[in-house]
Amino acid sequence: MADATESDEAELLPDRPPPDLAGLPEDIRERILAVQEKSGFVPNVFLTFAHRPAEFRAFFAYHDALMEKDSGLSKAEREMIVVTTSAANGCQYCVVAHGAILRIRAKNPLLADQLAINYRKADITARQRAMLEFALKVSQDSASLEAADYQTLQAHGFAQEDVWDIGAVAALFALSNRMANLTGMRPNPEFYTLGRG
Amino acid sequence: MADATESDEAELLPDRPPPDLAGLPEDIRERILAVQEKSGFVPNVFLTFAHRPAEFRAFFAYHDALMEKDSGLSKAEREMIVVTTSAANGCQYCVVAHGAILRIRAKNPLLADQLAINYRKADITARQRAMLEFALKVSQDSASLEAADYQTLQAHGFAQEDVWDIGAVAALFALSNRMANLTGMRPNPEFYTLGRG
Amino acid sequence: MADATESDEAELLPDRPPPDLAGLPEDIRERILAVQEKSGFVPNVFLTFAHRPAEFRAFFAYHDALMEKDSGLSKAEREMIVVTTSAANGCQYCVVAHGAILRIRAKNPLLADQLAINYRKADITARQRAMLEFALKVSQDSASLEAADYQTLQAHGFAQEDVWDIGAVAALFALSNRMANLTGMRPNPEFYTLGRG
Amino acid sequence: MADATESDEAELLPDRPPPDLAGLPEDIRERILAVQEKSGFVPNVFLTFAHRPAEFRAFFAYHDALMEKDSGLSKAEREMIVVTTSAANGCQYCVVAHGAILRIRAKNPLLADQLAINYRKADITARQRAMLEFALKVSQDSASLEAADYQTLQAHGFAQEDVWDIGAVAALFALSNRMANLTGMRPNPEFYTLGRG
Amino acid sequence: MADATESDEAELLPDRPPPDLAGLPEDIRERILAVQEKSGFVPNVFLTFAHRPAEFRAFFAYHDALMEKDSGLSKAEREMIVVTTSAANGCQYCVVAHGAILRIRAKNPLLADQLAINYRKADITARQRAMLEFALKVSQDSASLEAADYQTLQAHGFAQEDVWDIGAVAALFALSNRMANLTGMRPNPEFYTLGRG
Amino acid sequence: MADATESDEAELLPDRPPPDLAGLPEDIRERILAVQEKSGFVPNVFLTFAHRPAEFRAFFAYHDALMEKDSGLSKAEREMIVVTTSAANGCQYCVVAHGAILRIRAKNPLLADQLAINYRKADITARQRAMLEFALKVSQDSASLEAADYQTLQAHGFAQEDVWDIGAVAALFALSNRMANLTGMRPNPEFYTLGRG
Repeated sequence: MADATESDEAELLPDRPPPDLAGLPEDIRERILAVQEKSGFVPNVFLTFAHRPAEFRAFFAYHDALMEKDSGLSKAEREMIVVTTSAANGCQYCVVAHGAILRIRAKNPLLADQLAINYRKADITARQRAMLEFALKVSQDSASLEAADYQTLQAHGFAQEDVWDIGAVAALFALSNRMANLTGMRPNPEFYTLGRG
Repeated sequence: MADATESDEAELLPDRPPPDLAGLPEDIRERILAVQEKSGFVPNVFLTFAHRPAEFRAFFAYHDALMEKDSGLSKAEREMIVVTTSAANGCQYCVVAHGAILRIRAKNPLLADQLAINYRKADITARQRAMLEFALKVSQDSASLEAADYQTLQAHGFAQEDVWDIGAVAALFALSNRMANLTGMRPNPEFYTLGRG
Repeated sequence: MADATESDEAELLPDRPPPDLAGLPEDIRERILAVQEKSGFVPNVFLTFAHRPAEFRAFFAYHDALMEKDSGLSKAEREMIVVTTSAANGCQYCVVAHGAILRIRAKNPLLADQLAINYRKADITARQRAMLEFALKVSQDSASLEAADYQTLQAHGFAQEDVWDIGAVAALFALSNRMANLTGMRPNPEFYTLGRG
Repeated sequence: MADATESDEAELLPDRPPPDLAGLPEDIRERILAVQEKSGFVPNVFLTFAHRPAEFRAFFAYHDALMEKDSGLSKAEREMIVVTTSAANGCQYCVVAHGAILRIRAKNPLLADQLAINYRKADITARQRAMLEFALKVSQDSASLEAADYQTLQAHGFAQEDVWDIGAVAALFALSNRMANLTGMRPNPEFYTLGRG
Repeated sequence: MADATESDEAELLPDRPPPDLAGLPEDIRERILAVQEKSGFVPNVFLTFAHRPAEFRAFFAYHDALMEKDSGLSKAEREMIVVTTSAANGCQYCVVAHGAILRIRAKNPLLADQLAINYRKADITARQRAMLEFALKVSQDSASLEAADYQTLQAHGFAQEDVWDIGAVAALFALSNRMANLTGMRPNPEFYTLGRG
Repeated sequence: MADATESDEAELLPDRPPPDLAGLPEDIRERILAVQEKSGFVPNVFLTFAHRPAEFRAFFAYHDALMEKDSGLSKAEREMIVVTTSAANGCQYCVVAHGAILRIRAKNPLLADQLAINYRKADITARQRAMLEFALKVSQDSASLEAADYQTLQAHGFAQEDVWDIGAVAALFALSNRMANLTGMRPNPEFYTLGRG
């Protein structure tokens, strides 16, 4: 472990350089190369988590379990939860990166910016609005959840497994937003314009 | 997927019965049996997450990566972060269960209750107080983290990897607290008295 | 009056030693000896208030008028209000000391910890939950009380004098919590374990 | 005790008529007549508390112990604390009634209104501003009090007993504000204009 | 532009002396003289804005467009909005100055102080209370406005143009309160007593 | 005035159709045609305010007085204040429309999105960060402004007139954000992509 007393300001957590790709464990290097192949660039979240291989594996396993599976929520709806709750947490990386993914998955160039500023004025259905209000309560004040909140989701046709999905996406990005803010993660420039065409 | 419109109130997420142990994947059943062997009971967090094997594996992998490894923070200090931030999030399960673990790891029967109500009045060192204030900022307002916060930790002798650990424990339990509140997880009665002797 | 500029940090209000029992007015010394006789120790609240005899007498007169009389609320219910509102105010002394009293009066070793972390997850009746929500509004935002709040209590069967009792207990501990935080009052170690058996 | 289910809205706590003076205990009736003799009217706080003689006696004993004694704070300064913290609590009775008392005791017709809206823009000394900031912290967030707050008061020349007085006045009116809001206490019209001449 | 590095503290914005009346543009000087003629003194808001003639003209044009025209809201009701929202913003100038105007326009010496401390305890109609609650939401949390808020106003008989007026008065004084706080505007002493007779 | 009781939900303020251009006063129609000529579309703020010609004129006069003049702040810096404070107020119209203007004026396609989510992570100078922190305090909590806030701006080289400009832009958009949220103003689709190239 580095001796903190010798660190100068430039060595603080938010300014740490990314790890050397060649020195990473095989599985992590492969996942990073695969995403680069597919996207044309390496999203910074991969480079940041690569400092800690065990946490990298756990985080992306959790991410894939929730975001890639079949669900009563469409993939675009899950990204709507990510963008809306990440904006409430002031997470620049998550809003910009997942805003791009949302634009692509929803085939809608405006929705991500609308949700990031004020979901109440976004072009969404009443069912999606109920989904986002529940997700925001999980994200911002989960201690206050009560029976009426679950019943509102039921009344909009969400099944029990959907409720878990809504809450769990909000919970995972509660972690993700904090890690991005903790480590000073910045969005890759590519994300700002993806899907706007 | 169950038809939500047929669900009655008793089937809402917080009241779902635990899954049948026999029907769980081998690795999950083994972990549950191992913890039962060691503790004498199965903490409810294992039963709740067992509804979702992929999330179970990711969550406990993340947990073990942070809470079981060697670190510049003692295991008791990591539990101090869990108890203090979980209290700020009103997570009954996490405060009671990790309060018990903290009493045992710190060999201190009073500390957990002190931290849960007001960490400013707890019997801790100035260094531990700085650790908890940083953890609470990550937990409650990570968007406002700034250079001065990192410098305060440095001034108390925390190394860069320690800062990651402090923030990451707060971030993981941001997720954990929300999952417990979402699913209505309740502490096992055993936790209330463990380590008070 | 002591010259403040000569005081060093150790003389600040929170660190003031308790007064000498022998020098206290007769009535105050007797009350302290009586509580010691009954409990086996002197709760610190008596020693702190003993610095100011007139305030000691007024405080305990107010306390006894509300907490010891017959009421539409059981004594355990009044302690539930104390624990719940004191937790909202971050008062370590009141939560730990009255948590012990609640465990004893309710003959329930778990309830106090449940209420202190999140009353919404506690094992209480709907009527008790309404009582605590009213008490918390008096405690945290009394300016916003409105007709609907009183009507909710009526609908749960609370009489007018009960409403006064609920609000007055919350109001008295608004004072008590602030005095404990102001003077740095710490719970006696005995309180942490009383009533857990 | 009245049967709550038979009460109609007009009988709710805030609308209860004052008790009959003739039926009050001797000591309480005498105090009320004395204040009427001196002021020309009976402030409503006396009539409200008269519904509960034991609480009446405790409240005014506490009040007199803090507000009438000799102190390192002038009587006007103690009223400044009352007006400022009561405004923060939205207590109409306390701000209007004690605003009048402050105008008279400070011989200043403007100060009470200034403090009630924004103490930062009031015509007070730096020492008095430090006093009010400490009082507001006791009133609004006593759990966060820390050594630096006491040291700021020391630096402005406040002695240890003065610090107790500042905090205790804020604490007593934390109770008083809540009782006024709970019972719907309204300021007597006379208070609005007293001391403005 | 003045060289900021040469400014001393006395030259900070809040302490800037008013501009010389003789040097002001004709139209501004005339408006100031007219108000002095009518009121017997020059309210400080005119002197502060006179530092910036273009902003002076725009501000008073906006003010007159909303506050002087015929409307579904009486002039007193518009002043009720000003006093209530300005108190929520801690604007000493606006509460004291418009409190005086409200006393005069409503021919009620008590209403302004009631609204400034707690509008829920003021002597107003249910319709006026709905008006103030909508105005406060515009003032304090306009992002959360939703259909139900407009429907509540409709249910109290407010027409669409009335809703604009309520919101626009709250919005204009959102600006005005901030300019007063920014520039350290203080109420003229005359305002404190006007309309109390 | 329309009879509110006959209105149906579609006639609520947020859903009102824009006024007929031909029926507008000459000066307002000309300004609208000029902006259309220059931009290729009519920003919705012009159509909304056109419902109220006197308020239209006052608003744009105020806007031009602050946003178009020479100042110690560049035009891009003034737009930075607009975007940052409008995001804090959840004003979708202002963030998206002025985000576009900021991208163009700063010749920076990323800055607006960075500021809208978290100004602390934006690529700006320390001086600009101080400017934004002052602007946010004016916008969100102007009652708490104090000498230290002005001195911080001075220390970054801002002159007295610059301080007025920073605060006044924040104050004008406090009004503008509320009018946009009140009237349900939506950003024109063109704004989302302008200046991203």
